[in-house]
Amino acid sequence: MEIKEFLNNNNKDVVVVQGLGFVGAVMSIVVSNSSKKDYAVIGVDRKESIEIIDNINNGIFPIKSSDPKIEEYYQKSIKKGNFLATYDTSAYSYASVIIVDINLDVQKNSDSKGNLNSFNVDLNPFKNAIRTIGQNCKEDVLILVETTVPPGTCMKVVKPIIEEELRKRHLSLGKIKIGHSYERVMPGPEYINSIKNFYRVYSGIDKNSAQETEKFLKTIISTDEYPLTRLVNTNATEMAKVLENSYRAMNIAFAVEWSRYAEEAGVNLYEIVNAIRMRPTHSNLMYPGIGVGGYCLTKDPLLASWAKINHFDSNDSLEQSEKGVKINDKMPHYAFDFMKKVFDLESIINKKILLLGVSYRSDVGDTRYSPVEPFYLNCVNNKAIVETHDPYVQYWEEISLKVSQDLDEKLDMSWDIIVFSAAHSEYKDSKVISKISNMSNVKILDTLGILKKKDIVKLNKNNIVKVLGRGDI
Amino acid sequence: MEIKEFLNNNNKDVVVVQGLGFVGAVMSIVVSNSSKKDYAVIGVDRKESIEIIDNINNGIFPIKSSDPKIEEYYQKSIKKGNFLATYDTSAYSYASVIIVDINLDVQKNSDSKGNLNSFNVDLNPFKNAIRTIGQNCKEDVLILVETTVPPGTCMKVVKPIIEEELRKRHLSLGKIKIGHSYERVMPGPEYINSIKNFYRVYSGIDKNSAQETEKFLKTIISTDEYPLTRLVNTNATEMAKVLENSYRAMNIAFAVEWSRYAEEAGVNLYEIVNAIRMRPTHSNLMYPGIGVGGYCLTKDPLLASWAKINHFDSNDSLEQSEKGVKINDKMPHYAFDFMKKVFDLESIINKKILLLGVSYRSDVGDTRYSPVEPFYLNCVNNKAIVETHDPYVQYWEEISLKVSQDLDEKLDMSWDIIVFSAAHSEYKDSKVISKISNMSNVKILDTLGILKKKDIVKLNKNNIVKVLGRGDI
Repeated sequence: MEIKEFLNNNNKDVVVVQGLGFVGAVMSIVVSNSSKKDYAVIGVDRKESIEIIDNINNGIFPIKSSDPKIEEYYQKSIKKGNFLATYDTSAYSYASVIIVDINLDVQKNSDSKGNLNSFNVDLNPFKNAIRTIGQNCKEDVLILVETTVPPGTCMKVVKPIIEEELRKRHLSLGKIKIGHSYERVMPGPEYINSIKNFYRVYSGIDKNSAQETEKFLKTIISTDEYPLTRLVNTNATEMAKVLENSYRAMNIAFAVEWSRYAEEAGVNLYEIVNAIRMRPTHSNLMYPGIGVGGYCLTKDPLLASWAKINHFDSNDSLEQSEKGVKINDKMPHYAFDFMKKVFDLESIINKKILLLGVSYRSDVGDTRYSPVEPFYLNCVNNKAIVETHDPYVQYWEEISLKVSQDLDEKLDMSWDIIVFSAAHSEYKDSKVISKISNMSNVKILDTLGILKKKDIVKLNKNNIVKVLGRGDI
Repeated sequence: MEIKEFLNNNNKDVVVVQGLGFVGAVMSIVVSNSSKKDYAVIGVDRKESIEIIDNINNGIFPIKSSDPKIEEYYQKSIKKGNFLATYDTSAYSYASVIIVDINLDVQKNSDSKGNLNSFNVDLNPFKNAIRTIGQNCKEDVLILVETTVPPGTCMKVVKPIIEEELRKRHLSLGKIKIGHSYERVMPGPEYINSIKNFYRVYSGIDKNSAQETEKFLKTIISTDEYPLTRLVNTNATEMAKVLENSYRAMNIAFAVEWSRYAEEAGVNLYEIVNAIRMRPTHSNLMYPGIGVGGYCLTKDPLLASWAKINHFDSNDSLEQSEKGVKINDKMPHYAFDFMKKVFDLESIINKKILLLGVSYRSDVGDTRYSPVEPFYLNCVNNKAIVETHDPYVQYWEEISLKVSQDLDEKLDMSWDIIVFSAAHSEYKDSKVISKISNMSNVKILDTLGILKKKDIVKLNKNNIVKVLGRGDI
């Protein structure tokens, strides 16, 4: 369908979403299902993403999720006929609102042990995307940046590029509105709610921009229950996003450090964390695990640190926040070394290893920057025979690998080592534990502390169980 | 009064508290006021502390506090006649329970800029104190260690010393009970509650020790509302304590790092923190400030790190937790540099500076490791004329300085710089703000973000206000 045809016969406000990934695709169907205003939504992605675009237009939503609302919202948007996907950048010219949901990546230079030697932020792809908007948009459009950007980006990058392009087209510079409101999207069972029913922070490059951003967000988000918070400028909201993710990344790194201590001192870190969490001031203490994955926590502290020097001429980077990323990056490598050490394995050549779970999060099929990836690669590079299972992942894109969906079949085979590498509910099932406990001489590694006391007793009868962060077994 | 005389005519269980400092003195009156069991409490301190001992026995409690329950509990214990203080170590021989509340210090080697170059833990004073117990106690006493110790201490230090001394006295080794349950005492308005009405974690060197510890704690703490948590061994509870304080120290250090960023980027960190705190998972994010003080957060991560290597033969220390302490130690020095920078002061020679607050915590008179100390010393060493005020501190022991209690008098004098260095409620009073706003050409530094928007507007009329962590004013 052509854009003109799609927009024909309706006077709805047009919202264009730039980027149809994990955020943009879902944002699109949330906007198209607004109960407060009727929008016509056009999702724009690059020509290379033609498969996603075609799928959306042909009834197949590109993201599989355990949240039933995803499919429900998508089907409703089809019924309404108010959601189109395209790579045609002329879409921007119809928009009252353009939401920027593209990626902004960090290039990490790490060695094979996960040591982060250096990193860089290449703003060019982001700049080009913004330029495309500037070349096409109306002079009074609201550009709402949701992408996690290095602090300073809206003022120092987005605004000048848009103004430059408007100037080239002899358009007025005074009418443009640029807002920033970062998403807190959580793939998983609360996918839609993490957009629609959650707190939002926002700002604008000027008062009018902030007001228009607020007006728009109020039509999308349940702001009565989850009131909006306006910050004074876009630097502040940009910083808020990377700060909150840095905080989380650092707190996970903290758990890592103490996890090793617990192993050395013969204690159970999970038990300690539970005891401390009774204190209201310490209720957010994290558990240890195989590592940190996903698109945000693995890079946002670095984005922030990079901008401190490059956008604000600081002499020093965010040392502690960077350290969080560095520690977390090494977690899967540590988990691999831990496996060899606790099972007293000189070598894993030809060992048959089953990895239960490849996603970076429990009960979600998201393998972006999954910590299971370096763990898997370590196994393969050390010549083990590795197979993988994940109820939510059929194909592991990052390493081009088919992943089994058939747990029964996998548990009928014989293994030297079974690794719990994601905390999917399916793996905690008593039938699964029973099946594994009936094997013998299998080494079982729980990298996430998902095994309960009674599971461990059961599994330990014919096998050996070890748990990351537990020195007591 | 002699111990024998004190104990005469009563068959109460004797509880001896070793150490009459900020924890032990208050623990003593909590035990003597148990509603569940009648105890006779003897507080033992060293002969050097004779003044404290005499005061307690003569109706003067050594700790002043904003918590009215402190005086109330103390007076009740006098009335009951069940609390004696002494330096006579024979007290231990009468005890059914001995509570260890002495200090265990870290020796820091820092330069004049607050850089922590190295540190050490000298266990000898602690060992000697434990030995005194072993030389006097009954063979079946319960020794309850509340002191924050390097993980491993109960098993590797306390138990062997006690057993060695019992052996010398030809007593049985099988009957001794050693428990560990760390306090979470918070000097201030909730002083008593922080012992009596708060969660407790505990353990013992064996099952019997843990059970007896539990039995005793149940007579002291409101365990119905604040259930106890038993951990498997003393390593675990010892680790829990230092872990929870390391967590807090690190989170404060995190705020410091971002505070500087906020100053550079022209944003208000307090506003950002408030916005992020709306997220339940981020509700404990800390504010920045002049620094971290008090007895615990400034050393506990180092205790933990030291023990990792010295008690558990680890190859690496707790790098990230140590870093927290290191960053925090430099905060007051940074605050001093910030003052010079934002007020564009080449030198502060002969500048008249008023420090409002010298305590490390708001509404508490506790100057132990107060961050105001290095700030004050920096001012004095740079030849400023510095005066101090604090409603809760008459005499600043650590630097032997009289502190003014008369705010009106201080605010009638003329100043070049006024520094809000503690967040006491008194300083937030509108009358205080008015009085300062009527001055002129005063540089006002708020190191804790206590000034409200309207205060700043008011103060800025005739003066210049700057706030740590705020780049927006």
